[in-house]
Amino acid sequence: MNIVDIINKKRLGYKLTKEEIAFAINNYIDKKIEDYQMSALLMAICLNGMDSEETFNMTDVFLHSGDILDLSEINTTKVDKHSTGGIGDKTTLVLAPLVASCGVPVAKMSGRSLGFTGGTIDKLEAIPNLRTDLTLEEFINQVKEIGVAVVSQTGNLVPADKKIYALRDVTGTVQSLPLIASSIMSKKLASGVDKIVIDLKIGDGAFVKTVEEAKILGNIMVEIGKNYNKEVICVVTSMDQPLGKAIGNSLEVIEAMDTLKCEGPKDLEEVVLTLGSYMVSMGKNISYQDAQKELMENLKNGKAYSKFEEMVKMQKGNIEALEISSKVYSLKSKTTGFIKEIKAQKLGELVRSIGGGRYTKEDVVDFKVGMVLNKKVNDYVLEDEELVKVYLGDKDININEILDCFVIDMEQKEDNQLIYGVIK
Amino acid sequence: MNIVDIINKKRLGYKLTKEEIAFAINNYIDKKIEDYQMSALLMAICLNGMDSEETFNMTDVFLHSGDILDLSEINTTKVDKHSTGGIGDKTTLVLAPLVASCGVPVAKMSGRSLGFTGGTIDKLEAIPNLRTDLTLEEFINQVKEIGVAVVSQTGNLVPADKKIYALRDVTGTVQSLPLIASSIMSKKLASGVDKIVIDLKIGDGAFVKTVEEAKILGNIMVEIGKNYNKEVICVVTSMDQPLGKAIGNSLEVIEAMDTLKCEGPKDLEEVVLTLGSYMVSMGKNISYQDAQKELMENLKNGKAYSKFEEMVKMQKGNIEALEISSKVYSLKSKTTGFIKEIKAQKLGELVRSIGGGRYTKEDVVDFKVGMVLNKKVNDYVLEDEELVKVYLGDKDININEILDCFVIDMEQKEDNQLIYGVIK
Repeated sequence: MNIVDIINKKRLGYKLTKEEIAFAINNYIDKKIEDYQMSALLMAICLNGMDSEETFNMTDVFLHSGDILDLSEINTTKVDKHSTGGIGDKTTLVLAPLVASCGVPVAKMSGRSLGFTGGTIDKLEAIPNLRTDLTLEEFINQVKEIGVAVVSQTGNLVPADKKIYALRDVTGTVQSLPLIASSIMSKKLASGVDKIVIDLKIGDGAFVKTVEEAKILGNIMVEIGKNYNKEVICVVTSMDQPLGKAIGNSLEVIEAMDTLKCEGPKDLEEVVLTLGSYMVSMGKNISYQDAQKELMENLKNGKAYSKFEEMVKMQKGNIEALEISSKVYSLKSKTTGFIKEIKAQKLGELVRSIGGGRYTKEDVVDFKVGMVLNKKVNDYVLEDEELVKVYLGDKDININEILDCFVIDMEQKEDNQLIYGVIK
Repeated sequence: MNIVDIINKKRLGYKLTKEEIAFAINNYIDKKIEDYQMSALLMAICLNGMDSEETFNMTDVFLHSGDILDLSEINTTKVDKHSTGGIGDKTTLVLAPLVASCGVPVAKMSGRSLGFTGGTIDKLEAIPNLRTDLTLEEFINQVKEIGVAVVSQTGNLVPADKKIYALRDVTGTVQSLPLIASSIMSKKLASGVDKIVIDLKIGDGAFVKTVEEAKILGNIMVEIGKNYNKEVICVVTSMDQPLGKAIGNSLEVIEAMDTLKCEGPKDLEEVVLTLGSYMVSMGKNISYQDAQKELMENLKNGKAYSKFEEMVKMQKGNIEALEISSKVYSLKSKTTGFIKEIKAQKLGELVRSIGGGRYTKEDVVDFKVGMVLNKKVNDYVLEDEELVKVYLGDKDININEILDCFVIDMEQKEDNQLIYGVIK
């Protein structure tokens, strides 16, 4: 067996055996297969696909490439949440302390920026000194002590996915449903949680563009979960425009804090409450409605925000020192009308281009840059009224490229749904 | 402009602009784009194709990535030959001295092994001490002095193709007609020759599998030639079985010498005479028939072989020291019948697996290993009669994998054509 034959087999559209998938991935981890060979195989998988058996096999090879965590020391039902990623998606920063404040432990491992979308770990690291590289012992102890911890993957947890995730990000091989499914599910299965809520985002600013694709991906993930006796619920939500108003690491942390104080954008709050209600309902075995009520109370009474502060402090973060760029430019609308569309993916790419994300694995993220939208879809804007504030760092940007992301029209957008449904 | 966007654009099936192609290739050469990004782009090109404009643009970017040779010091028409590659293809080793012996200068740059096929430079380097890395001055002087030189690409000649050719070989991205066309033509255009004969091989052991593909590829290359005012003729020849009987570097050198002494296999001689007749006819502006007559004479009277010896000597090679492995195994047929098929590609892959070719750019080729066929297609073989001799080095091989490459039947193969036609 050799990697060139395996790449050629997938290039020609044939199905790979479990042995071939294991050979490719395990030898890649052992550095016997090069980055440039793995990226060619990943592109062939993107373009020629994998069937469900190949996807199950890839998930299983990923899962067994490292440690599988034992969180049984935390002796209540542990519910995890995962987002398939989008622009301005700071949901975890709000959801983790909020759910924990209701008594459901959140032991969460998150990722870094992928393609044009950001990553929770980058956002957290925008808080100076905040540690995301906890040891397993520290991680478990923190969850036992305060009920919540958000950390990056440890070195021994699904190392295969960690290495391949970073490679996909810089080789245009992110958008493949079987790769997305096996990446997400192997991480969730290895992280030792009992039940999983997945925020499956669709639309212009997500990896998944249509409801049909979301159904395929959701069903694959639910099926993978069943193989391992883990309950999985996918909530399909819209990413047709950025979630909330802030894009960029530090700016998103600020917006998450506002949301924890009931001062955040309504769409972000709605997504957080929907996902959180499923999590608390599964974790405490209560109804969705009762769960929702608890969550809303804890937003209002300040318990959710206190839990956030507690988490940041325990992970050594200094929230007072959070910085945003002082090079701020306010961009105004050239016309009057309704915002009919905000091109989320393009905005995500623009934020990446000014330093907010990565092009190669080695790129250093500039936490202080980003954008804050003053208007969202179906808002009315006047000529010369502010559309967006841009926070720049060292890299420049073309103003018209930003303004072109806002489509202004005389009519409102008809279908402006935020939550599309649930797959379970 | 950034490489991830360009990869994504091609992954989604869009046409790349000349600026995007130039950005990708030139930054790759400047090491600002990584191997793993280029291999992903190459796989996307393999699977989503390039139209003729993209192919012309890629050729032009390749061509201008380095020096374009000026061979005007050699003041007769310089005709070059190129083969699209196949199993056991030692044509150049015979053709170059033979054509030179007729008074048509051959200033030839050749390549190394690519995928499952060998490369002329590896074969030449099987001759101990033989230099293939001549400087341009040495190269021109040798052609002026003895009429022939076969060298590897110099560092400054189409560096883009050199680097990408090596990467394609180890990433399963060889089989793409636009990539093959732009690779071949940029090298030929940069090498400063006036007219070009291309041996376009089709069949199981070639990168091109069908006559239809050969027509597409041939026409692209003829069109690229016209853009630069260079006459190009493609001769379509069969690679349904290995050419000649030897596969493996040293063994092929020996067979080439036999052919220069009129003692070689008939199919190899026929291909050499056909290609050589076009070359001499173009170079001396005489008829195909007159050219063929000259070539046959020089094979018989020893002038062609003398020219080979002269070339090897001038490039410091020591032909007496050529070595083949002493670990020789004779494999016998299990049945009696006609050889209906010899799986050329599989044999090529097997020779690579025992060290005769490369899997990664850094692999060192074992010149001494290979196979010599005792039977060719439509030969009759008796049970227990020798089918093939295998010359092994350090790596082992499964006997049945070799024997399975020979399909034995009660009937002969009907269509056993060697030369399919000409595209010009």
